[in-house]
Amino acid sequence: MHTPGSSTAGYALLLIVQVVFIIVFGFCTDYAKELLPVKNETARANLPSEPEGGNLRKYPHFQDIHVMIFAGFAFLMTFLKRYGFSASGLNLLVASLVVQWAIIMRGCYEMEDGIIPISLQNLIGADIAAAAVLISMGALLGRTTPIQLLIMGIVEIAIFAGNEYLQLELVKAADVGGSITVHAFGAYFGLAVSFMLRPKKDQARAGPLEGSSYSSDISAMIGTIFLWIFWPSFNSALVDGADQERAIINTYLSLAGATVATFVLSALVSHEHKLDMVHVQNSTLAGGVAVGSICNLLIHPFGALIVGVLAGVISVLGYRFLTPAILSNLRIADTCGVHNLHGMPAVLSAIFSAIYASFASVETYGSSLATIFPAMQNPNATSAAGEMEHLEYVIGGYGRSGAKQGAFQLMAIGLTMVIAIVGGLVTGLILKSPSVRQLEEHELHKDDAFWETPSEESTNTTTTNESASH
Amino acid sequence: MHTPGSSTAGYALLLIVQVVFIIVFGFCTDYAKELLPVKNETARANLPSEPEGGNLRKYPHFQDIHVMIFAGFAFLMTFLKRYGFSASGLNLLVASLVVQWAIIMRGCYEMEDGIIPISLQNLIGADIAAAAVLISMGALLGRTTPIQLLIMGIVEIAIFAGNEYLQLELVKAADVGGSITVHAFGAYFGLAVSFMLRPKKDQARAGPLEGSSYSSDISAMIGTIFLWIFWPSFNSALVDGADQERAIINTYLSLAGATVATFVLSALVSHEHKLDMVHVQNSTLAGGVAVGSICNLLIHPFGALIVGVLAGVISVLGYRFLTPAILSNLRIADTCGVHNLHGMPAVLSAIFSAIYASFASVETYGSSLATIFPAMQNPNATSAAGEMEHLEYVIGGYGRSGAKQGAFQLMAIGLTMVIAIVGGLVTGLILKSPSVRQLEEHELHKDDAFWETPSEESTNTTTTNESASH
Amino acid sequence: MHTPGSSTAGYALLLIVQVVFIIVFGFCTDYAKELLPVKNETARANLPSEPEGGNLRKYPHFQDIHVMIFAGFAFLMTFLKRYGFSASGLNLLVASLVVQWAIIMRGCYEMEDGIIPISLQNLIGADIAAAAVLISMGALLGRTTPIQLLIMGIVEIAIFAGNEYLQLELVKAADVGGSITVHAFGAYFGLAVSFMLRPKKDQARAGPLEGSSYSSDISAMIGTIFLWIFWPSFNSALVDGADQERAIINTYLSLAGATVATFVLSALVSHEHKLDMVHVQNSTLAGGVAVGSICNLLIHPFGALIVGVLAGVISVLGYRFLTPAILSNLRIADTCGVHNLHGMPAVLSAIFSAIYASFASVETYGSSLATIFPAMQNPNATSAAGEMEHLEYVIGGYGRSGAKQGAFQLMAIGLTMVIAIVGGLVTGLILKSPSVRQLEEHELHKDDAFWETPSEESTNTTTTNESASH
Repeated sequence: MHTPGSSTAGYALLLIVQVVFIIVFGFCTDYAKELLPVKNETARANLPSEPEGGNLRKYPHFQDIHVMIFAGFAFLMTFLKRYGFSASGLNLLVASLVVQWAIIMRGCYEMEDGIIPISLQNLIGADIAAAAVLISMGALLGRTTPIQLLIMGIVEIAIFAGNEYLQLELVKAADVGGSITVHAFGAYFGLAVSFMLRPKKDQARAGPLEGSSYSSDISAMIGTIFLWIFWPSFNSALVDGADQERAIINTYLSLAGATVATFVLSALVSHEHKLDMVHVQNSTLAGGVAVGSICNLLIHPFGALIVGVLAGVISVLGYRFLTPAILSNLRIADTCGVHNLHGMPAVLSAIFSAIYASFASVETYGSSLATIFPAMQNPNATSAAGEMEHLEYVIGGYGRSGAKQGAFQLMAIGLTMVIAIVGGLVTGLILKSPSVRQLEEHELHKDDAFWETPSEESTNTTTTNESASH
Repeated sequence: MHTPGSSTAGYALLLIVQVVFIIVFGFCTDYAKELLPVKNETARANLPSEPEGGNLRKYPHFQDIHVMIFAGFAFLMTFLKRYGFSASGLNLLVASLVVQWAIIMRGCYEMEDGIIPISLQNLIGADIAAAAVLISMGALLGRTTPIQLLIMGIVEIAIFAGNEYLQLELVKAADVGGSITVHAFGAYFGLAVSFMLRPKKDQARAGPLEGSSYSSDISAMIGTIFLWIFWPSFNSALVDGADQERAIINTYLSLAGATVATFVLSALVSHEHKLDMVHVQNSTLAGGVAVGSICNLLIHPFGALIVGVLAGVISVLGYRFLTPAILSNLRIADTCGVHNLHGMPAVLSAIFSAIYASFASVETYGSSLATIFPAMQNPNATSAAGEMEHLEYVIGGYGRSGAKQGAFQLMAIGLTMVIAIVGGLVTGLILKSPSVRQLEEHELHKDDAFWETPSEESTNTTTTNESASH
Repeated sequence: MHTPGSSTAGYALLLIVQVVFIIVFGFCTDYAKELLPVKNETARANLPSEPEGGNLRKYPHFQDIHVMIFAGFAFLMTFLKRYGFSASGLNLLVASLVVQWAIIMRGCYEMEDGIIPISLQNLIGADIAAAAVLISMGALLGRTTPIQLLIMGIVEIAIFAGNEYLQLELVKAADVGGSITVHAFGAYFGLAVSFMLRPKKDQARAGPLEGSSYSSDISAMIGTIFLWIFWPSFNSALVDGADQERAIINTYLSLAGATVATFVLSALVSHEHKLDMVHVQNSTLAGGVAVGSICNLLIHPFGALIVGVLAGVISVLGYRFLTPAILSNLRIADTCGVHNLHGMPAVLSAIFSAIYASFASVETYGSSLATIFPAMQNPNATSAAGEMEHLEYVIGGYGRSGAKQGAFQLMAIGLTMVIAIVGGLVTGLILKSPSVRQLEEHELHKDDAFWETPSEESTNTTTTNESASH
């Protein structure tokens, strides 16, 4: 039916990539200084004193994020009736490859003497970066080969790392939950790839396997629920103290609001006013995305709820009306509806972050203003001298007013979308090139092309007939 | 078949409730003082010094409980063969709504200047309160509409918060694991509602869908196992230091004992001496409930094992003999058997707490007596002056003897059961009122009335036949 | 069909074992001193000062391991199409029983005044010990009765505890991730039992139920993914500070490398070059095992990746070629392929640990050498006097050179394998004795012999046909 030869070449190439990664790790990385043994006591005394517990304080947060990336995304994508091996397996493969690559690419911006110092921080950053790729994968689910996904991941991470550095270090946008740098980036990147891989005009419709089964909808809920549970950890991992606790509270409330709104809207707009599992599996999570860029701000509990409710509403309406329209008009397929779960809620978050930034001042935020909006601090202040080291690189400079910071928040989302879309289009071009094996139409949304699947055609010695394939 | 109109009205009402919650949050809540930015350094110095890490120390415990509430309960209830969308979806909806409401209702008892101060503590409390509602939902599973569940949740939380305050602050009962205030309350409340919703005499039997399938039994085990794993966190979240470590150890051992006892009893009393998944899914957890009120006491490891074994035995016997008897005699259906998992083990826990309290004294507990049984401390002691602030409100006063504290433990469970049952009966009356849509018999234990379910009548282009519905 | 009588006797025996455990707990255990109330302030002052947070610092790590043991192993073993009740249920039963026994058996080596002091540390140790039994269970999955498994668990834990003490305290092998004492021990013990229970010559082939279904492969991925996620916690739970952070980083990278290698090799060696779920479910985890004994050493990020890639390669090749060969030649069945996931990667880890130990010195490891390789410290050094207390018992003495420590690492794996194999053979002999009920051939890999399973022969009142059995 298909030519396995091209797959073999692809996997051999993957092995070469892994070997190259090992070589790069060998020459360009090492443990961070504080993880190396201390040769003498004088050296230890000269180390900068760390906050108690050091990086390991963040370990529970890291593990929560780890569950989201490797279990949450994996099971959320098992909703297709006959693509569960790919969803759970390729999620693991893609994430395992790109976390290595993300450590290298993100490390380029924090090298010391040509060496990337590796600590738990890098693993957290790599996991978060992997989320962007898995979001893009959601847009394409069932319509690429494994090798195409890996090529996309490699290209995407390189662009992701550059964009992240640009927005957080040069533009100095506030985005602790990664709505701009992760969710918007991953969603629009994936949609741009999807546009390049769009089917011919007569094929732009959902195929027979592009739907769920009763049991695949249940396994997808494993993903939804673990993502829902640990989202407060995702949004709060990079901040500390009161900021972290506010990020947790706001994310918790926003998710609760989005969930209620999702059920209400789903029942109101769906066929026969019945609830739709697609909405429940996805739009309930939009609250976590929409609060991402503002979760550590003083949005207050009611603000978090409002943001969540709006996100749920937008997301359900997107699934119900926008995604089918985009598919039929632009032929951009979006298997998991990442535009509704990640794309639009992230843009909403960026807009809110601009509004809240406009009203931010030392009067309301006190000394924490310098932590939350680093570019709003006065460059002449003596108290925050340590933070000033990158002064010369900041686009627009320090000492921004609230309104100016707000404008830079909008610039961050705008730039991110442009970079993601251009990057995605170029990546799509690569994936379409004749040297890369494409899926044929009968292989769409189906494990069988790349996986050995159990054949259980009701053997007469057994009493099961769960599923049959061959 | 049914009139979707009434559902639409229900969901619209839900939206209104959500908007009201937002308004209440806007006017009556704010972040706790320690989460607000400090305007000047003098103000910070005047803040009460917190234990290191503050509330955030509890974050891993919180996340464990969060998994129990949103993943544990959800998947445990997926055991019905054709009610998995509702079990996992409505668990999420109900919990998302009632945690908001619980923050408000519980907050009424800790307002400061008319404002409820919100910190991570409130989220933990709200999650625990949600457990009570989800337990009640377990009793009714498959026999209510989503809107009925939500109405129940709203009423139940209001009563729950009052009862919790009564037992913990006024009666000063020891109940760190919530066996009295959460498990007994939730179970008897749900059973009282179930009594009010009891079927007509000729219908009091298990319907064709009131059973499991092979795959739904496996997905229910996801719930069981995560509840089992994180139960030590549930029981130990509200205590600290050595008390917390004892609570962890005792809960761990009690669960292990209950598990062994469950398998033994299940095999001994079941049909053909085969193991019954209902017992394994539920009674293994009874050890966590039964040790709840006493897990921080000096019950010693062997005591924890004994409590667990007893709980497992009682629970399996309840499933095998009591639940069918209650159904046929009182027509009280109990879909998940919450009486066996939560009700009876909680009563057992309260009785044990009375016994252990009777023997408690300063000789055995030292200075920790005042923490564990606050009303047993001498009101004239100077050392615990800070704890005395509520002195005037405590029913029965301070300076209780062990025996007196034991009597108050029994009073706590007795009062809780009365309040829960009366509250449940009233709630059931509301749910039965003609203005609320009821399920018709053919809709019992079935997702299809409220969910769009996949129709997969073995399309000839695919190779799957997992399940079919239409 | 079968005689349930013998099962009943087995379960009654299990009850007796549980009662005996309670008695032993009553007479031989108590909370550790720091968990008992302080009677007066002088006593508290005399307690040894603990590191901040005490044992409770380890609680998040403990919970991660707890998820691995009770959810990870349980769901990984649900891959058989008709053995999911047993896999998830018996995992819970066996683990619940053996953690109690492990607390006792391991406690024998740390008694104080005839009492085993119990703290969170003992629970961590017991969970880790349970892993060894669950690994052995994996080798035998579907080919024993529940009672046979429990008997094996009891014998295995007794031998495990002795071997662990021997390798860690007397041989002073470095093995923080338990590759030697847990993975190699559990795998070879289980394989030896499997050898004793080997089928007659004409039956040594995979039965009709010894395979997966589409949905059982998905539920197995729950196990795989949670094991994968939390493996860094397993390997780093017993170390602190920089050692712990290195253990986390190395395990993370090794797993990532093993995952990429697994997919590559699986595609290259499998039928039609398609990916094999057996490999994905298991070999991706081999990286965690292979890095176990060396994860806290200075193997550097690239070293961790190399170890992971090698482990993935070896493991897939083992599944593809070695396991079938062992089955057909030696008639040793290995249902889960524990030799490929735990056995060979653990031996690899031990060999690497010998190599890295050979190059270890104070020059490279500084003052942490004494923590990592306790027997390499100079017995005359004054600084580590506290560590010297067991001086007289250490086989080969203190002050070892790197090469000598390397030799002892090899001795540890060799001794462990001999003890595990002999112990397994003896255990297998017990399990084969005529007084113990054996499975008949038609009962292999099938829940129905020991579980009530749902009969769903497409009742015409329902719309489901997920699975049918009777």
